[in-house]
Amino acid sequence: MKPLTIAVDALGGDFAPSAVIDGVALALKRDAQLRVALCGPVQVVEPFAASAAAQGRVDAYPTTEEIPMDELDPARAVRSKKDASLVVAARLVKEGVAAGFISAGSTAACLAAGTLVVGRIRSVKRPALAVILPGKRPVVMVDTGANADCKPEFLLQFAEMGRAYSAAVVGVENPSIALLNIGSEQGKGSELAKEAQVLMHQHTANFQGNVEGRDILAGVADVVVTDGFTGNVVLKTLEGSMTFLLGKLKTLFMATTISKLAALALKGRFADLKQELNPDQYGAAPLLGVKGLCLVAHGSSSPEAIANGILVGAKAVRNQVTEKITNALCEQAGSE
Amino acid sequence: MKPLTIAVDALGGDFAPSAVIDGVALALKRDAQLRVALCGPVQVVEPFAASAAAQGRVDAYPTTEEIPMDELDPARAVRSKKDASLVVAARLVKEGVAAGFISAGSTAACLAAGTLVVGRIRSVKRPALAVILPGKRPVVMVDTGANADCKPEFLLQFAEMGRAYSAAVVGVENPSIALLNIGSEQGKGSELAKEAQVLMHQHTANFQGNVEGRDILAGVADVVVTDGFTGNVVLKTLEGSMTFLLGKLKTLFMATTISKLAALALKGRFADLKQELNPDQYGAAPLLGVKGLCLVAHGSSSPEAIANGILVGAKAVRNQVTEKITNALCEQAGSE
Repeated sequence: MKPLTIAVDALGGDFAPSAVIDGVALALKRDAQLRVALCGPVQVVEPFAASAAAQGRVDAYPTTEEIPMDELDPARAVRSKKDASLVVAARLVKEGVAAGFISAGSTAACLAAGTLVVGRIRSVKRPALAVILPGKRPVVMVDTGANADCKPEFLLQFAEMGRAYSAAVVGVENPSIALLNIGSEQGKGSELAKEAQVLMHQHTANFQGNVEGRDILAGVADVVVTDGFTGNVVLKTLEGSMTFLLGKLKTLFMATTISKLAALALKGRFADLKQELNPDQYGAAPLLGVKGLCLVAHGSSSPEAIANGILVGAKAVRNQVTEKITNALCEQAGSE
Repeated sequence: MKPLTIAVDALGGDFAPSAVIDGVALALKRDAQLRVALCGPVQVVEPFAASAAAQGRVDAYPTTEEIPMDELDPARAVRSKKDASLVVAARLVKEGVAAGFISAGSTAACLAAGTLVVGRIRSVKRPALAVILPGKRPVVMVDTGANADCKPEFLLQFAEMGRAYSAAVVGVENPSIALLNIGSEQGKGSELAKEAQVLMHQHTANFQGNVEGRDILAGVADVVVTDGFTGNVVLKTLEGSMTFLLGKLKTLFMATTISKLAALALKGRFADLKQELNPDQYGAAPLLGVKGLCLVAHGSSSPEAIANGILVGAKAVRNQVTEKITNALCEQAGSE
């Protein structure tokens, strides 16, 4: 595997810096070609870089500022706090020191750092967040929250970004694309969905047409395209319904002595199922369409989630997801 | 209980007319004050009206036309097919013969019949579909698909319609209202959500602000308001995730002899849980904001779903949901 460097914001997230540091250590263990540029307070990054866990593959970038999780104007904070750990991590990508960065900080601040510091790919109208959902097969959903209001031509580009990500990270050879809508027939939907449908029928290779909410996990397509409002609501609705149903199951298992025994017998299998559904396995959502990989991790990321985020990011870089997006969108711009 | 008549479209749905007829028979058994105006082919409705199961409380309305499930222009069909079973059922509501109608036919045709035949309440900008979701507490979500494109003032009205329905059918005294959005903070969301937030803060009583997808089933509010595109996607996403997870559990239970034994021990409790999550318990989604109750049942409705739809509809009528909506929206129009 090719050696590469990922910049890591040590300060982002609810359990920073310890969850982040532990995640970096895990990732280094699992990928011998990985280097990390660790950005954060000097008293955090320097001792870790010098520790055995860093294996001599961590460069410390001491920073003096921080963008808090509840920052009200993240874009302004990214512009003004030049020495914030997140901004320094993004700048390392911009300058080519790192191939990508990861942060578990405020999503809005990460998006701002990706767009303002790393910068959009020239032909990209709007960068978008992608998430891999653990359905019957792994499904890439894009946009999951970067753009609450979209135009049809944004969705057309999201399809190409999702395709590149599915190919690079999930390993699908010729990913099929679908549009999330409220009916499977052509001509259904909101004005946005109706116009996007027409565009995608014209320009999107392997376009399967509309899918509905119930089809997402059923594995009907490799990539599901939607606007950032709907995508974000869907993502969190899935999260909520899994939590709700697993809670119901727990109550059911704890109800009687017999049910407790049954639960005990099934324990291992349940652990496997929970692992299968665990969003931590992909660790972080990439902001696609920027010149380098920007990985937005959940605020509540565990070390496992951070490690997986870094490793999935490294895979995306090695499989040239950014180059693939650049080429696809240049081609599309040419064919329009 | 007050005697009342519900008009029933015998032809709607995948299993019509038998599932509908069986559903009517069930509903008549459970509500001694219920009468049914049954609309459909003469060879279906007359024998049933004369049967013992009808208990002398079914009036047959023989019709000669039908609006098929895959009708491409449902609004035109509703206008031109004056003797379609759905249209006759809606006309009985318009004429005051029935307090409401139910159909498991095409949703678009039901919406058209509600709006064009029964007619909008004067102050209502857009009628909307409401669904009761079985979360930690029953949650009314509105709109779940009548209006793919919305203006903020539509959402303001959906809140009042949902409140009236929650009070009348779920029995909540002072229902709390929330706006489905992509962040809990004020100022978050799409242009639509941002403007709706401002309006709802000004005009909506017991407004809890924004909720996210993961809060819907967690029982954070009694009524969740959203546009019909997002609402429909959420509803079907919930459906899909429940199907997916229950499928996973089935595989898990069938894996080994021990897991099969454990499953056997838990069988009764699982049946209870499935019943609790079963959307059939509320049977049908009302189109709120029209002059009379229009109930849209799922195309795949079982007799149980049809019966529950009729009974929930009767409850809504007895608790004066239409009058409550009319009053609330007149008051709101006055206060703006």
